[in-house]
Amino acid sequence: MKVAIIAPGRNVAVWKKIIEQHNQMVQVEIYPDISHRDDIEMVMLWQHPSGILKDFKNLKFISSMGAGVDHILKDPDVSSDIPITRVKDDQLTFSMTNYVIMGILNHHRRLNHFADNKKNKNWDMTMPEVDVKIGVMGVGELGGDVLDKLKYMGFRVAGYGYSKKASIPYPYYYGDQLADFLRQVNVVVCLLPLTPKTEGIMDNKFFEQCQTGTYIINVARGKHLVEEDLMEALVSGKISGALLDVYRKEPLPETHPFWEHPAIMMTPHIASVTNPEAAAPQIAENCSRFLANKPLNNIIDRNKGY
Amino acid sequence: MKVAIIAPGRNVAVWKKIIEQHNQMVQVEIYPDISHRDDIEMVMLWQHPSGILKDFKNLKFISSMGAGVDHILKDPDVSSDIPITRVKDDQLTFSMTNYVIMGILNHHRRLNHFADNKKNKNWDMTMPEVDVKIGVMGVGELGGDVLDKLKYMGFRVAGYGYSKKASIPYPYYYGDQLADFLRQVNVVVCLLPLTPKTEGIMDNKFFEQCQTGTYIINVARGKHLVEEDLMEALVSGKISGALLDVYRKEPLPETHPFWEHPAIMMTPHIASVTNPEAAAPQIAENCSRFLANKPLNNIIDRNKGY
Repeated sequence: MKVAIIAPGRNVAVWKKIIEQHNQMVQVEIYPDISHRDDIEMVMLWQHPSGILKDFKNLKFISSMGAGVDHILKDPDVSSDIPITRVKDDQLTFSMTNYVIMGILNHHRRLNHFADNKKNKNWDMTMPEVDVKIGVMGVGELGGDVLDKLKYMGFRVAGYGYSKKASIPYPYYYGDQLADFLRQVNVVVCLLPLTPKTEGIMDNKFFEQCQTGTYIINVARGKHLVEEDLMEALVSGKISGALLDVYRKEPLPETHPFWEHPAIMMTPHIASVTNPEAAAPQIAENCSRFLANKPLNNIIDRNKGY
Repeated sequence: MKVAIIAPGRNVAVWKKIIEQHNQMVQVEIYPDISHRDDIEMVMLWQHPSGILKDFKNLKFISSMGAGVDHILKDPDVSSDIPITRVKDDQLTFSMTNYVIMGILNHHRRLNHFADNKKNKNWDMTMPEVDVKIGVMGVGELGGDVLDKLKYMGFRVAGYGYSKKASIPYPYYYGDQLADFLRQVNVVVCLLPLTPKTEGIMDNKFFEQCQTGTYIINVARGKHLVEEDLMEALVSGKISGALLDVYRKEPLPETHPFWEHPAIMMTPHIASVTNPEAAAPQIAENCSRFLANKPLNNIIDRNKGY
């Protein structure tokens, strides 16, 4: 079978190598060097140019090259009956969890405050930590791991998701219980998938429901956050600060107010970067399963959007 | 029985209250308001004035008001046959572990680097993390908890202590294997007790044995570190940075070079502050055990020094 990688600007040679070594029946072409688009039976996508999929008329399935699939679902050229798969990556989970815990601990232990005191040579021992109760929105692979690690470390945690779940070992809220969830916590981590239901979830109304002084960590997608509303909530004091890794527009424009806000710590979408050594073999395995007429792994549920 | 608290400058009213409520046979006096020093059968100490213990001629045991006992053992007036106890505090362990993990994650995820890039509005996604293998010196209550939590989070860890130990679930080095230990790790956390053997352990010779670029976290005692030697090791590049909570002289003098060093993050001895609600009941319980002729809890081993 012939497959194509469409991930402009990304170095994908290692993906091609891993997949072709895994199964010699698979040939990988890399966009834009694709000989006959009609011959391609599977595309691997990461931020593909819009409209391009129209030309691929014989696709049997589509693979996301990351954990998210919102970039694929938002494409109107993807027909509703074609299976979409995503990758799971322990290393990705490890990185994401550590990034989130770093943000929580820096807030909990008042790192900014002590960094300021260092600048001023100020030996002030008062209030060495602030009490935290951590809420994680999104309790899938990534959010579930964050909650598990925080619980093991002894923190009080709560989870929020879109569907009811059985036997979760921490307080869990779902659906229209968002306000109840926010009342219980003073640190909110967003690890939701981006779907029409979750887009813009962190807006004025959301911040009004937060405890005063709540700290925000967004490591999901920029579109979960209404950025102007966060700026307002920082002024009002409802939100005390934020750690952000994702933005509506990336790279973040130089004129964006986040760059200069002292209560916002920012990183350039690096909380968790998919590792080809872990992800490519999963796509290779799906090619082999397809050729052997076996069911694919990690197919997403289009109704849920993840 | 009469007991005395000698902890100048510290607000100890809550300790007195907890202990007297626990056992009405115990009366607590607070230095300097002690009626008859000969009547005192136990002293609770935190950084007591030197020479003061000479006047207490009827002490049956001595309680440290923290996890450390070096402040008691270094006092030549403490006779070698008097039992010394310390306190264990889950909250203290919780705080210490979280402080240490915060320091490790900030180094691992290059927080300083990304904070600098934020200042310069620089969207640079390269090298989102540095590889870490973490070595913890001191594998008692505190060091053991740090290692346990880091291992659960998926980090590679190793421990170093002064005595051989059986069935430790990570690579463990002891005694004269310090150089072997340092070769295996690139983050070193000091959680050793302060004893004549460990004083000044982090000196020029120690830093020479470290991997180039090793990161140092000292949360034990200021005297574990030879401060001038750390400054030299930062210049040579053997050590890439440090998070320090304790110093030879506290408060740290304004002229000290640590204040202005960009690769040193500092806090004013707040990594872990003993919580009276957790600690005082343990001392109260020892008073009751003493009155009932039962063996005391948490007696330290003077040969080991902790």
